[in-house]
Amino acid sequence: MTDLKNDAILKTLRGEKTSYTPSWIMRQAGRYLPEYRATRKNAGSFLELCKNTDFATEVTLQPLDRYPLLDASILFSDILTVPDAMGLGLYFVEGEGPKFKHPLTDESSIQKLDIPDIEDALSYVFNAVRSIKVALNSRVPLIGFSGSPWTLATYMVEGQGGTDFLTIKKMAYSRPDLIHHILKITTESVSKYLALQIDAGADIVMIFDSWGGALADNEYEPLSLNYMKVIIHNLNLMGYQDTPKIIFTKGGGQWLEKQANSGADALGIDWQTNIGVARKMVNNQLTLQGNMDPSILLSTPKAIEAAAKQIIDDYGYGERHIFNLGHGITQFTPPENVQCLLETVRSYSTQFHN
Amino acid sequence: MTDLKNDAILKTLRGEKTSYTPSWIMRQAGRYLPEYRATRKNAGSFLELCKNTDFATEVTLQPLDRYPLLDASILFSDILTVPDAMGLGLYFVEGEGPKFKHPLTDESSIQKLDIPDIEDALSYVFNAVRSIKVALNSRVPLIGFSGSPWTLATYMVEGQGGTDFLTIKKMAYSRPDLIHHILKITTESVSKYLALQIDAGADIVMIFDSWGGALADNEYEPLSLNYMKVIIHNLNLMGYQDTPKIIFTKGGGQWLEKQANSGADALGIDWQTNIGVARKMVNNQLTLQGNMDPSILLSTPKAIEAAAKQIIDDYGYGERHIFNLGHGITQFTPPENVQCLLETVRSYSTQFHN
Repeated sequence: MTDLKNDAILKTLRGEKTSYTPSWIMRQAGRYLPEYRATRKNAGSFLELCKNTDFATEVTLQPLDRYPLLDASILFSDILTVPDAMGLGLYFVEGEGPKFKHPLTDESSIQKLDIPDIEDALSYVFNAVRSIKVALNSRVPLIGFSGSPWTLATYMVEGQGGTDFLTIKKMAYSRPDLIHHILKITTESVSKYLALQIDAGADIVMIFDSWGGALADNEYEPLSLNYMKVIIHNLNLMGYQDTPKIIFTKGGGQWLEKQANSGADALGIDWQTNIGVARKMVNNQLTLQGNMDPSILLSTPKAIEAAAKQIIDDYGYGERHIFNLGHGITQFTPPENVQCLLETVRSYSTQFHN
Repeated sequence: MTDLKNDAILKTLRGEKTSYTPSWIMRQAGRYLPEYRATRKNAGSFLELCKNTDFATEVTLQPLDRYPLLDASILFSDILTVPDAMGLGLYFVEGEGPKFKHPLTDESSIQKLDIPDIEDALSYVFNAVRSIKVALNSRVPLIGFSGSPWTLATYMVEGQGGTDFLTIKKMAYSRPDLIHHILKITTESVSKYLALQIDAGADIVMIFDSWGGALADNEYEPLSLNYMKVIIHNLNLMGYQDTPKIIFTKGGGQWLEKQANSGADALGIDWQTNIGVARKMVNNQLTLQGNMDPSILLSTPKAIEAAAKQIIDDYGYGERHIFNLGHGITQFTPPENVQCLLETVRSYSTQFHN
């Protein structure tokens, strides 16, 4: 790790001082970039792009080439690769979210669920990590990631993302044995998956809990947070205690105190949570990552500057903050607005880092 | 109001003692009931049902006839009647949410927006309120309602509901003058609309802020809460200070302290918020309404009983709690599970009301 030319995010994750607030952007390699759209056209589908080492490397590097102010890269992949490796058949319909061809619709398919041979089934991911690390040539750290067990389970049971989650919640309340079986298998698989990403070169790992915020207050810990904790614990037991771990429950701002005790080094924060309030909730003990509403990037430079400064002011401190959006950047973002954001964060944040 | 046979909810809204925790259920007249589906079949579309006084009265009373333990009725209508009265053309596609034929897509349509003749354009609503009051014969109070200005504006600008709200948020950040024009016109219209519902007989009014939770932390007050405050203020100025007012921002649990200063008598609470924590946040000064996850009603009597008792225990107090779900009941709910819920709340809550 020490050979990185830019280790601002690693320092921030360890609570060390930096000269500015570092930044990266969720989904920074994506459809808002014309160069991404060109590569995607050559690659074919989104999944073909993920599975092709050269293309995945190319698009991962694109935002770094365009925006030298970015302080991290993130593996170009999907949060749902693990259930795909379990045989559920991940596919994408243009304009809709990811879906599974073979969701877990009955008890027997759930009972048959087993930990796949991650190393073999997801070799394309580890190949991409190795290739990206070579291409990065130590410019910035590389973030590896997975979906959280609960989030994976929602797609595995519902067959797709959504807003109501009636099928999986009905299962969770009626047959807790079944849901916990899925979550346990998934937790062990994700642990192995992230370990292998680190082996391949990932400097940081992040767990995206996209749908944890849909859970009831007293179900969030047993169904989502506790399994993320187990992954962190597993990674530490396997010897990866020095690799920083970030968890992000979208819609989970009210549970930050609970998340602070997860063993994670950093927590993602969405835009519904004031980052100054969040800092108090975690008692300054963890790094916070966030939290601008991605829709602001659709507006004007003036509004973007004001919103970025507001977040930095709200955080009000020169340590343990990684600037990011509160969700992935939208495909409709004008690329020049990202430059405006990154310049604002870099120049405005230095005053807090003396 | 004093002639009501069951005034438990009114007492609870005023902070007075009752012998049990009163209950009603959001969307209690709806598709989960076979008798509703039969009436709906006769009426035609959802909007035709809303606009027919006899049918609207019939379905409003149906859940009260089936469940004598319900402590309130709620007008059968939609949250989007006001923009429909403005000429935007509300319509419903089966299986999708409500939409508008003529959304506000350009500046000139926004500038032309004006307060409609609510009394005339929405006479079908006031006729329904009067008819329902006669049919109720003072059994329980009747709740009138509207969508919040922000929530109405999202549909008016986006043309439909959604999860990203990119169009309206881009407008809010780029052209705040336009969004505030829409919100002001809508606020005045909703104020008049709720006043006329009270004149027609509504005992309580509720403002549904379905999409306030999508706003950034520092945008919630200026774009949503403040306009709900103006409606409450307007109603008080018009002489309706004794009619209890409930506001409910779904996904707004982190902003309860702000909501507590809105002038509302009660706040709706979704299931992501622990109702005991919420009670502390509002310092026992307001009534809280909620907050069971509707998906629990899809499970088993055992799970429903446990979840209902948990909420009553979490609240832990015999005043200022109206039991409800954290969102509308789903169409897939077995009707007998509602009976199980209502019986549990009635019998279990009495211990807190000595």
